[in-house]
Amino acid sequence: MPERIGNNTLILPSNPSVIGYAGVGGVTESEGPLAGEFDFLYDDDKAGQESFEKAESIFHKEAVERALSKAGKSKSDVDYIFAGDLLNQCTGSTFGIRNMNIPYVGVYGAFSTMALTLSLASLFVDSGAAGCTVASTSSHFCSAERQFRLPLEYGGQRTPTAQHTATAAGASVISTHVKNTPCVSAVSIGKIKDLGIKDANNMGAAMAPAAAETISDFLNDTNTNPEDYDLILTGDLGKVGSALLIELMEKDFGTDISSVHNDCGLLIYDMKKQDVHAGGSGCGCSAGVVNTHIMNNLTNGRLNKVLFVATGALLSATSTLQGETIPSIAHAVLLTGGER
Amino acid sequence: MPERIGNNTLILPSNPSVIGYAGVGGVTESEGPLAGEFDFLYDDDKAGQESFEKAESIFHKEAVERALSKAGKSKSDVDYIFAGDLLNQCTGSTFGIRNMNIPYVGVYGAFSTMALTLSLASLFVDSGAAGCTVASTSSHFCSAERQFRLPLEYGGQRTPTAQHTATAAGASVISTHVKNTPCVSAVSIGKIKDLGIKDANNMGAAMAPAAAETISDFLNDTNTNPEDYDLILTGDLGKVGSALLIELMEKDFGTDISSVHNDCGLLIYDMKKQDVHAGGSGCGCSAGVVNTHIMNNLTNGRLNKVLFVATGALLSATSTLQGETIPSIAHAVLLTGGER
Repeated sequence: MPERIGNNTLILPSNPSVIGYAGVGGVTESEGPLAGEFDFLYDDDKAGQESFEKAESIFHKEAVERALSKAGKSKSDVDYIFAGDLLNQCTGSTFGIRNMNIPYVGVYGAFSTMALTLSLASLFVDSGAAGCTVASTSSHFCSAERQFRLPLEYGGQRTPTAQHTATAAGASVISTHVKNTPCVSAVSIGKIKDLGIKDANNMGAAMAPAAAETISDFLNDTNTNPEDYDLILTGDLGKVGSALLIELMEKDFGTDISSVHNDCGLLIYDMKKQDVHAGGSGCGCSAGVVNTHIMNNLTNGRLNKVLFVATGALLSATSTLQGETIPSIAHAVLLTGGER
Repeated sequence: MPERIGNNTLILPSNPSVIGYAGVGGVTESEGPLAGEFDFLYDDDKAGQESFEKAESIFHKEAVERALSKAGKSKSDVDYIFAGDLLNQCTGSTFGIRNMNIPYVGVYGAFSTMALTLSLASLFVDSGAAGCTVASTSSHFCSAERQFRLPLEYGGQRTPTAQHTATAAGASVISTHVKNTPCVSAVSIGKIKDLGIKDANNMGAAMAPAAAETISDFLNDTNTNPEDYDLILTGDLGKVGSALLIELMEKDFGTDISSVHNDCGLLIYDMKKQDVHAGGSGCGCSAGVVNTHIMNNLTNGRLNKVLFVATGALLSATSTLQGETIPSIAHAVLLTGGER
């Protein structure tokens, strides 16, 4: 049963386990430093489909099915699936999982979706509402570009602050505690922050204040310091937003996180060799990194305590055209390494 | 702490209370039979804003603030707000609540959103994760028409099976049990059903099978019959979908719900006098009806046991253009009248 502490953190005393996890990626992801840890890499970003949107659903489905298979669970074992994505009306998720016959809670959290679905999936298990749940999300560079910016065919130039939406999907299978598996030990659902940033090509800057507040709240609520974590992992601020986050944490909260901070948008690509501007983004970026590299290291003991803070820019193409600012949010999930 | 029974129903033994609720509507809603029960009716569907999207956010904000005020709660008393809507990236919700400083769980459930947010908001209270939560949603005829169909200026003819998206918003404030208030006593999260309907102008037909399955599951799980309820209220199948639902329940499950069934899409408008084709729809339709007429009657004792089953068509304009079918879902919430 979840226990509220401090201002806004829920401790999950039963330590729900991540008994299966999987990440799948596309072509650009297969050229990145984490390629070897992905469960499957498509050599065709269309995955044999007629459209990028349909391909995204295939990626999503593949990630969920692989995570279930690694967990040794079938679809009928799953009490709830929590999923969402960036596509209008979250069709990446709904079309991906529509034949799975699992009770479905649709969420919308933009890039923060993996942390939001992980939070809800773990809370349901901790509260006894479910015995086994799935958290999943996806994104696709090509479907996102044409929906939020311009069709690829236009060949528009991207600004240096723009982030590259990952073509990837990730899924975690959560169950009541099982020994020697990564666990979800605490969650903190964020509040919307809007500091007036309007540049949809600089979402890292829009999202950094939300990440700073959620991290600071979590550290205060749990009475911990950055050094208590092996990693404070944001997803996905990229190069610009990560630098801003470290500055904001220092200036506004007097906390130096630079020695333990990293960002999914900087981990998924080779920032020197790949043409990804300010780094990766999109729901699939943090979903892909967490459900490969991070869970692997929590399993093998190289990491033991990771504060995963996924950030989301809650804009739409319409809101940007109507001159609106970019409300942002960040949700935190404490991932721990389980017994050894 | 929620208790799982049967196949897919969660009983909430603590009976979380709806301590405040509010519905706001626009011009067409002010001409409907429930007008007198709405908390506020705008005489301008733009609510003084520059765009219909901005107006929808104002409606959403107004519903949440009125519900909180009626509950005697301030924003800082709220542990979580669960919200979502039909607009791309759920901006009706995010821009409506962005300054409230409340931890926010974004959901996407299309027209089923009010049942989905009510379910999560009540589960969080029942599990002890929260003491006070808000569930809210909104829709707007004009923002939905141009996003899903055609700009209003085009003056396109609507088919007789088309439903009229309500310009309305509704919010419920949920807390630990308080005597003599409506309660959320059980919830059942639905599974996606897709029977191959492709006509985006006949969403009632696409959604009816999902409603039938969720109602049948709920009756089986709780070992109850339709006569055990004062009302089985779908939202929003309209005229076409409601007739289909009654037929499907009879044919596929051998259950006659005709004597206790009604639909939010048929209640919100005068089906004889108002030009709303097959009836109301949109997240705001069931949110508006439940957070006025239904909660009022649960409070004054005219209703005591209402199974609210909100249905959602999980399509997007893109999926329709790409020839996809319409996956649908229905979530059930058991609303009870509290002590007398």
